[in-house]
Formats: sequence, C-alpha cells, structure tokens
Amino acid sequence: MVKVSVVGATGFTGAVLTDLLAGHAGVELDALTSSSFTGRRVADVFPHLRVGARYVAYEPARMADSEYVFVCYPHAKAHPVVAELVDGGHRVIDLSADFRLKDATLYPEWYGFEHPRPDLIGEAVYGLPELYRDEITRARLVANPGCFPTGALLALAPLAERFCLELVVVDAKSGVSGAGRAPSDTTHFSHVHDNFKTYSEVGHRHTPEMVQELALAAGSPVPLSFTPHLLPVHRGILSTVYCRGGAEGGPEMSFDNEELYQLYTEFYAGEPFVEVRPATPSLREVQQTNSCRLALRGDSASGLVKVVSVIDNLVKGASGQAVQNMNIMAGFEETLGLGRRV
Amino acid sequence: MVKVSVVGATGFTGAVLTDLLAGHAGVELDALTSSSFTGRRVADVFPHLRVGARYVAYEPARMADSEYVFVCYPHAKAHPVVAELVDGGHRVIDLSADFRLKDATLYPEWYGFEHPRPDLIGEAVYGLPELYRDEITRARLVANPGCFPTGALLALAPLAERFCLELVVVDAKSGVSGAGRAPSDTTHFSHVHDNFKTYSEVGHRHTPEMVQELALAAGSPVPLSFTPHLLPVHRGILSTVYCRGGAEGGPEMSFDNEELYQLYTEFYAGEPFVEVRPATPSLREVQQTNSCRLALRGDSASGLVKVVSVIDNLVKGASGQAVQNMNIMAGFEETLGLGRRV
Amino acid sequence: MVKVSVVGATGFTGAVLTDLLAGHAGVELDALTSSSFTGRRVADVFPHLRVGARYVAYEPARMADSEYVFVCYPHAKAHPVVAELVDGGHRVIDLSADFRLKDATLYPEWYGFEHPRPDLIGEAVYGLPELYRDEITRARLVANPGCFPTGALLALAPLAERFCLELVVVDAKSGVSGAGRAPSDTTHFSHVHDNFKTYSEVGHRHTPEMVQELALAAGSPVPLSFTPHLLPVHRGILSTVYCRGGAEGGPEMSFDNEELYQLYTEFYAGEPFVEVRPATPSLREVQQTNSCRLALRGDSASGLVKVVSVIDNLVKGASGQAVQNMNIMAGFEETLGLGRRV
Amino acid sequence: MVKVSVVGATGFTGAVLTDLLAGHAGVELDALTSSSFTGRRVADVFPHLRVGARYVAYEPARMADSEYVFVCYPHAKAHPVVAELVDGGHRVIDLSADFRLKDATLYPEWYGFEHPRPDLIGEAVYGLPELYRDEITRARLVANPGCFPTGALLALAPLAERFCLELVVVDAKSGVSGAGRAPSDTTHFSHVHDNFKTYSEVGHRHTPEMVQELALAAGSPVPLSFTPHLLPVHRGILSTVYCRGGAEGGPEMSFDNEELYQLYTEFYAGEPFVEVRPATPSLREVQQTNSCRLALRGDSASGLVKVVSVIDNLVKGASGQAVQNMNIMAGFEETLGLGRRV
Repeated sequence: MVKVSVVGATGFTGAVLTDLLAGHAGVELDALTSSSFTGRRVADVFPHLRVGARYVAYEPARMADSEYVFVCYPHAKAHPVVAELVDGGHRVIDLSADFRLKDATLYPEWYGFEHPRPDLIGEAVYGLPELYRDEITRARLVANPGCFPTGALLALAPLAERFCLELVVVDAKSGVSGAGRAPSDTTHFSHVHDNFKTYSEVGHRHTPEMVQELALAAGSPVPLSFTPHLLPVHRGILSTVYCRGGAEGGPEMSFDNEELYQLYTEFYAGEPFVEVRPATPSLREVQQTNSCRLALRGDSASGLVKVVSVIDNLVKGASGQAVQNMNIMAGFEETLGLGRRV
Repeated sequence: MVKVSVVGATGFTGAVLTDLLAGHAGVELDALTSSSFTGRRVADVFPHLRVGARYVAYEPARMADSEYVFVCYPHAKAHPVVAELVDGGHRVIDLSADFRLKDATLYPEWYGFEHPRPDLIGEAVYGLPELYRDEITRARLVANPGCFPTGALLALAPLAERFCLELVVVDAKSGVSGAGRAPSDTTHFSHVHDNFKTYSEVGHRHTPEMVQELALAAGSPVPLSFTPHLLPVHRGILSTVYCRGGAEGGPEMSFDNEELYQLYTEFYAGEPFVEVRPATPSLREVQQTNSCRLALRGDSASGLVKVVSVIDNLVKGASGQAVQNMNIMAGFEETLGLGRRV
Repeated sequence: MVKVSVVGATGFTGAVLTDLLAGHAGVELDALTSSSFTGRRVADVFPHLRVGARYVAYEPARMADSEYVFVCYPHAKAHPVVAELVDGGHRVIDLSADFRLKDATLYPEWYGFEHPRPDLIGEAVYGLPELYRDEITRARLVANPGCFPTGALLALAPLAERFCLELVVVDAKSGVSGAGRAPSDTTHFSHVHDNFKTYSEVGHRHTPEMVQELALAAGSPVPLSFTPHLLPVHRGILSTVYCRGGAEGGPEMSFDNEELYQLYTEFYAGEPFVEVRPATPSLREVQQTNSCRLALRGDSASGLVKVVSVIDNLVKGASGQAVQNMNIMAGFEETLGLGRRV
Repeated sequence: MVKVSVVGATGFTGAVLTDLLAGHAGVELDALTSSSFTGRRVADVFPHLRVGARYVAYEPARMADSEYVFVCYPHAKAHPVVAELVDGGHRVIDLSADFRLKDATLYPEWYGFEHPRPDLIGEAVYGLPELYRDEITRARLVANPGCFPTGALLALAPLAERFCLELVVVDAKSGVSGAGRAPSDTTHFSHVHDNFKTYSEVGHRHTPEMVQELALAAGSPVPLSFTPHLLPVHRGILSTVYCRGGAEGGPEMSFDNEELYQLYTEFYAGEPFVEVRPATPSLREVQQTNSCRLALRGDSASGLVKVVSVIDNLVKGASGQAVQNMNIMAGFEETLGLGRRV
C-alpha cells in the first residue's frame, strides 16, 4: 500500500482519478485538494462517486506522507506546485503540459510562460508507458501526456519506427469533457448538441508535443498537421490518422491490411492497454476504460495508410494513464485498479 | 409597416425574435439593444441569422419612432424599462414575468422585489391570445406568458371551463434553452447530455402564474402541482397534464377520447396556432414553430384525464407568441411572419 | 461457485447480464444461448465486453449442470422455456413478464396469451428484494420485476404502507434501451434524438403489475395512472410519482420533507441498493449501477407528495436486480458482483 | 408555374423535397409516389409537414402533366424509372448515383449493376450548379450530386483550378440522416448516441464521384483519400479537407489565410449558396438551409491547406440542390423557394 494525494481533484480528470484511486487495491488516499470545494465531501460534489473523503486546501504539509502525488492543475499553474513537491521528495505525476516539451524555449510561444525549471524538464519522463516504460520506472517526475497526443502517438509509433514518413495528418474528434468542467459558451449544451465544429485549426497546443514525440519515434522530424474537432459526446477521442511515406532508406510503405495488422500486433505485443483489431473501433468500445484500440487501413489508390485510434480522453488520455504510470513507478501490476469502468 | 424595437436582443429569445421580425412583412426593424454586444452585427453574434443590423446600447431616444417595443430582460430588470417605454407612449410587449401576476403582493415572495407600478399591473393584459384576444387588441402593455404556463394553460383551459376540477398535476419537461444563454453548471453539455432530472420541484416561479390563470379559466381556485424537468434537448416543452374533477355543479368528467377531442376541437375552433389531434404529439412536430399541439386521453381506471401538450419554448412559449400579440395589436393577420421555422 | 446459464443472452439486458456474471466472483458461466448469434463470440457481438465465450443454441441439455438459469426472452415466449427449466430442476430467474401477474386471467388481455401454468404463477416470487427478500431466498422461480414497476414501487412502498393512498400518478421517463435492441422506427436515432414523446399513454403493459404490487403494499387497491415517455438517452428511468391520501383510518399525509425523508430512511434501512437522499437525483447518478435513488418533496399547496426515483433500467430495472435475486437465492452476499459499473 | 412530381417521396430526402416544393411559389405539386405509404396523407406520415396531399403508387401516367420529375430512389433502382421518364419527355432530376459516373464501366464495381443506358450517362449533367450551371440550363437529365461530393467539391474546386494538387484528404463527418430512414443497427439510437465511428474507410461509393469531378476541375487526376464518419447528429456534413500541392507548372501553394480567402471569394463571387468566411463554420449554421459555408487555413508547417466545409446533407447535399437545379432548368430565380429552413 502506498499513500497517494491528488492536487486539484475537482475537475473532470480529478474526479476520474479520485474514482480510480478510491478503487485501487494498492493505494491509500491521503489528501484531495480543491480551492473551490474545500471542506465538502467528494460524494456531494460528484453524486455518482461513492467516496466519503473531504477536500482540503493545498498545503504541502498535508501530503507529507504521500509517496506519490498527482497534480491536475492547468498548464502554467502546475509547474510551481510540481517543482515544490518534487523538491520535497515526492514522486510526482503531472497531468498538465508543463513538463512535456523538452525544449524549454517552446513554453513562451505555446503556453505563454517562461519556464523557471529547465532542470526538471530535463529530468521529467514523458509518461507514455508503451514508449517509455523503463524510464518511468525510475522517474521522480512523470509528464503525463496530453489526450490528443496519446491517441495520435499510439497510432503513429509503429509506422514511424518502420517507415520513413513524409507527411502525417491527424484529424481528431474529441468529446466535450476535453474542454474541462468550467462552464463557457464552448461547453453550453445548446451550442454543442446536434452540432459539430473544428477549433484551433492551426496551432493547437498539443501540436508541438506530437511533433516532438513523433520525431523521437521516427528518428527525425516529420511534417504533421493536426486538427481537433468538438463532438457532441461527453467522453472519448477518435483520431483518424493519415500517413504517407516509405522508402528513402527504409522499406516501401505497405498498403496491405494484414501486413499492417501484423506490424502493429507485434509492436504492441504484451501491452495491456493497446488493442490492435481488424474491425475499426467506435468510441463506445473504450469509453470509461484505459484502453486504446487501433485499426489499420491501407489506401493504395492515394498512397496513404489510415490509422483509426480511439481512447477515453479522461482515462487513457489523462487519469487512467496517470495511474498506469504510478503502477509502473511503484512496481505494482501495471493493470492494477484499471479493470473497472470509471 | 410598423417600426419595432427589441430591448435585450441577444439572449435565446431575443435571437428568435430578431429572426421572426427580420422576416416579417409588416415590420421595419428599428433598434436592437444589447449591453454585451453593442456595436456588433447580428450575423456575427448569431452566425445562423442573416441579419445585417448592429446592436446598440439601450436608450429610449434610439427607439422614439418605434410604435411597438419588445422587452426581453429578465424578471426584476424589465419593469423599469417597460414602465419608461409605456409612459413614453410605446406599446410594449414584455417577455419577462414582471407584469404577469395580477396580485402585486406576490412579487416580493416569488420574484424578490416590491413592485413599484401596481397601476401598470392592473392595465397589463396577459398575452395568451387564445384566452385574451380582445383585450390584447387594445392593450398598451402585454405581459407575454411564461413558457411553462403557455403549454399548461392551453392544455387546461377547455377542461377548466367545462368541468369542476379538483386536482391538476402538470409534469413538464423542457429543453435546455429554457435555462437561457448564460453558461452555468446547469447548461454544461457534460451535465445535461445523456442525463435527465427535475428541478424546482416545489415552488417554481411559474406556479403562481399558472394558478392565477387556471383560477380565472375555471372560475375558482384549483389545486395545481407543477414539476419542471430538464431534457437533453435544445428546444421544446412537453407537458403531461393530469386532471381530476367533474360534477359538483357541473357535468361528470368524460373519459371518452372522442368526446374529449370534440370538446377541445370546438374550444379551439379557428385558432391558427392550436392543433388538437388524435395522435399524441412529439416535440419534433412543433420545434421552430408557433404551434401548440394537444392530445387527450381519458383514463377511467384512475379517474383522470391526461392532456399532452407540446410547444417550442422559444416560439409559442416566448418570441412567437410575442409576435402573435403584436400582430393582434397592430391589426395584422394573426399569422403574419409566423409561417417559417425559426 | 455456482454454475449459471443465460437463455437469450444477446439483447440489451442479456449483454448487461453477461457482463455482470462474467465479473461475479461466485459464478461460473455455463451456457449463453442465442438464436441469431449462435457460434459467435461475445466480444465480437458486443465489442465493449471482454468475454471470450461463444453463444450456443438453446437446449436444456446444454445447461444441465447450471443450478441457476436466467431467462431473457420476451413475454409470451419465455414461459415455455421457464416451465421446462423449472420442471427440470433448475432455479430460474425469469426477466420476462410471464410470471409477474398473480391473476392468471389477466394474461390474455394484457399479454395476448392464455397462461398454461397457473401452478407456476402461484409458486413464482415477485423478485423485488426490498419487499420479498425472504420469499426469494427459497424460490424455485423468481419473476424479475419490470423496469417501470421497479422504479415506481420503490418510490411508493413506504407511503403505501403508512398512509391510505387515494390517488397515485406515475409519470415515468425512460431511455431508449427500454425499447430493446431490435431496430425500428421507434429506436431510429433521427426520431429519438433532440425529441421527446409519450407512448402507451393509457394501458401500458406494466400497469397491472404496478397496480397489483401497490395494492399488496397498501393492503387494498389504489387508483394508479401511469404514463411512460421516451427520453433521448440510452439508459435510465426517472419516475416522478405523485401521491394523494392520508387519514381514513390512517395518519394524515405528511408534507414535511424532513418527516418524509425519515419515513423512507427507516423503511429502507440496511438496503444496499436503495438510497434515500435530501437532494433530488439525476439519471447520471445511477446509470450503470444497481442503485435506486429516491428523494421526497411535500407539496402542501396541492395536497400531494412527490417522489423522484431514478434507476438504470438495464441494471436495477432488469439484469442487476436479477443478479441480486440470484445472490439471495444462493446465499451470497447480496452485493456480490454488483459493485462495478456495467 | 410548373407541374412537378416526386418519385419515392417518403425517405428523408423525399420529405425535405416535399417540404421545399410545397412552399415553392413557382411549383404546383402533381404526384408524390410511395410504395409503402400509398393512399396516406403526407401530414400523417410526417407530422411536422403541413402538406395535405396523399401518396400514390408510381405510374408514369399519373405524372403525365409534370414537366419536372424528381427521382429519389436508391442506386440501381433509379435508372429504369429515370430512363422511362426521360424517354417519356420529362425533364428529370435524379437524386440517385445512377447517372453521376461518366465512365459506364465503373457501375458494376462500385454499384453492382451493368448500366443499360450509356447514352443517358453521356447526356446527363452533373448537377453541381457552381460548376455546371450552363449545362444544367439545357439538361433533360440532371444527376444530382452525392452529399459527400457536394461538400468536398465545393471545398476543392478553387484550389484544384489554381494549384497543381498532388494529394487530397477528405475527412468527412455526417449526421445519421445520411444513412436513410430504414431502421438498422447502424441507425439505432443506442448505437449512435454518445458514440462516433468511421465507416467504409476505404472504398466508399462516393469516392469515384469525387475523383471524377476533382480530375475535371483540376484538369488531371489527383490522388484523393476519403473517410466518412458517423456523427451523433441528425443532419449535416462537416468535411475537413487537406490539400498538398503547388508549382509543377502552376503557382506555389499559398498558406496565407487572407490570400486563400480572396481566392475563394472571387471563385464563388455571385454564388447565392456558397459563403466563404473568415471564421470556421459549425454544422448549426447551415442545418436546414441550402448553404455551403467554407473557411480556409494555411498550415505552412506541414505544407497543407485545410478547407472546412459544412452543408446540410438533406438540403444542399440532396433536395435543396435538386430544387436549385430545377430553378435553373425552369428559368426561375435560382434562390426561389430556398429561403426557408426545412
């Protein structure tokens, strides 16, 4: 049993994380912090959760006994807390973007702040277990991936490693929970329901994160175009990923569905949370779970491989992956506490 | 052609009203006021509307030439503006609740303010054309009915006039647009979608309005219980109305569907916007229109008559009815400008 | 560990039942039957289920070792199979309506068939554990309640036992899964989405079941009016129940929320799946769970008590309750296997 | 006034077409045919339509006086009727795919039938007014475009004409009405709602139609990859179109949003139903209208131009475009009857 705290526990990701941790056999919940709901019980704020604990204000002393701390603050607000906690000896899983980009010079442009802790950027491990499991085992600080990058990178990694990619298009469609719990015009039912739209068509903040990790997987930079869309759905991301490439020092691109299936099946052999399937998946199949399901389609007429990837943005795209990372860090079975729908 | 202005034109009802008036052959749009969107064009704030006008700040002088003014302010905020405009010689259709209750002593309890203009309360006509058409013709001030009372009263009036009612239950289900355009927890997509709930189970503000008008229709007070529910739907109200009564100086209640159909058909003969039908209606049938559709079911086993009533809360329940009232006041064909979906 | 089979396992209730049983620590899955999917794997028919078993055709011999058999056939089709299995020595939980009505003469009128086994009707126990737990313990045949009756009866039982009720109105709103998995005009997305309607306004088949059980709880017949509505929601039933009564040999009806809360809290003390709460519940709170949540509101102005009741129609309204019944019959902890979302 | 008939009037497109024609000032409705609803009134089959006519069985004699006939049969079933009507002297607008592909040898592969009338294929005009207005004026037979090709081609034509395109990706998301009115697993509310998926990921039937018309617009074949998705929405298609190209005998591709906006604005100058806009559109903006809205985004980092295109699949993607074509053929104002929401 390890003691665990959550900082910023009352957003959508915080609620799912609380649910996961409350049902996790290896975890004792220590502090759940909230600025807006201090003193209230979890079950009063989230009536569908059956957790009796009360929220407390954030103070490092309150979680002194916690070996692991999850930080669910928004970008730019997370890094001071993360730094304080890591410096204080905790192992931290940061669900914000504040330690995901390895190039510290990118933060002012993409996130609007000068990063004060390049040392921790260097130390932070990108928390995608399928690509960085070993590093995560020993990490003091895990930068939990963004929801869009998780779905896209799991779709891209096997192709990027095998073929020389010359163009990648990520057309991603996300449920509304990705916009967070704060009410706004964007999340008003009457604007989302029976409607559909793109947003941040060029320059969404998750772009440099995808570009960075795709380049690492491919061995060199790959042009990538990313377009997010807002679905009238609560949870889930479906990414339709288009890849062009092959040859130039590597093998020719395959457009054979069976070969592509084999490539992915081998790449993800033994992975508990990635399922490669012949049939294309729907969001429903992975909602409330930590799974990513993938299917491949070669389109020889246009010289593209299409990958369809589905995840639950709040689970594999955030809190479930965070628990998966903690399981790896703590030496637990990687699937512990991740078998229930949340 | 009459000149018309709208005060508070950028809520959901304001947008529908603008759409209706922009397509109304007898109307010239004068001022559309907005505090938050002053200077912006209608089509920029509501991209689905093809109206080129720009919003202006509210000033009575701006609408000096308008014979008719619609006021779309929330309760308690509307009455000073309404009074100013009526005093200034305009004919006003007030979409708020500020002049609906005839008993001035009810305002502090139900709406939280002491009413400063009992004279205008006395003069105001309750703008349900099917019950008060003659009075509307000559009115200087029309108190446009609430959305729930519109659907319920059209369902109840024929029974109340014919039978001595001893109990009425109004179980009403409303789309989210009834909660207005301001983002809140209540209107957040993730809280409404795939969900359903009651609210204000006892004491919703539309209760005294229904009670008042039902008593006037029945000739004496009738016990009425009203429960609103929030549907994961943008527009429309379906009210399931249960009535018990009969005899005590009137005829016995009928439970024969054909007789009930005849009663309602005769009551609403010639009404352009009330349709009595053998088949029970769905919301879809009236969304975007000024129609109320009604169906009757006698339930002799329990001694109740059930009336199912559907309206679009933004049209017959607000802006369409307001235009219908203006048509009556101006001597236009009552259906003018109300034939399109909005 | 007990061996368990499911007959008719590929409807919506069958799928939830399979999910529940596959994760139940006291159960070994024996045969899952299906006529349309014989030979196919569960996970191929329901990609969100991770169950490897294959469907087989129904033959009693295939489930000879099963102590418990769940029958998920539609009404009129279930009773021959149920009779065959009970006669064959199995303990059967029948999810159809075929053994719920105690008066055999009601079947021709309400369900269109002459009942061939009045003996089994007499023996069958109505499977609402909160009212018939003792009888269920020993039952060979449990008639699992309908979804609407479950939500309504749990809302009504404490009032019916305490007060002399003279009128009950059950206004119930159900998700689409209640209409079953077969595609039809009724379940077509384009007819349900952004829409809402009543159906079977008088004479829905669940009416005599509610009337029967309400009379048993009250000690004498109570006039009851039931109206189902179709929500644009996948799962869940919210019932708004209106009760009038009091005195006539019993106490006066209470309209005090606190007293009503006490009454219900005491009535359901110790019940693991009924939660009485001060705040009115939304569907979301119970979707995917076996819980029924209840809230009470006295409406003294109209002389009514309102009860709001929410359940998941596929869980507490069908398969979860069926497993709860099996747990009681088998002497398991009543909550075993019912703690996960399904 | 011209007489007009509709063959196959009770599908989703037939209903919208009936609505449009019933409100069209230049049209007298002659025969509306239906095999399943013969003898029934329009308003009974579609309660939201206020059309009194009754459906008749298809017989050419019934529409002998109709100058224009719209055929709304599915592919492979339409061509015999279309041929019969054209041969009989009517001007026909065929909403099926049976005369869209110019290469008669493609029909067996893509639509499963050998085309018996290559002469009419040669004569048929592809009914996209923005590209073929002159030919439509004189046509006896108009092949009304598919819904996906309409949205994609309007997005592509200006780029294709100006730049040498080397790759086009069309990622299209459609509402459920595109799947038609027949109930199926695909259209079951419980499978679509809160869900999202791809379908026909490679080889959707609209692909060769897009490829054909893109090649004609570009002057030579362009590799095109098309992926349709199913939105939990009733109506509308949003297409996100990615284009790569430039030079090779033409100008360099522009990634400047203002230049792209100018290019499109000039290309579509004077078009009543194509609106190029700086802000990206949502489905809501065009639902129930005959408009296509377009927005452009240059993505220089990946060397792509993104075009976002929205239409209502039942209006500009089918019945509205059919009426637009009839207006052109009949010499009416092109917008006649297309100003209302349907």
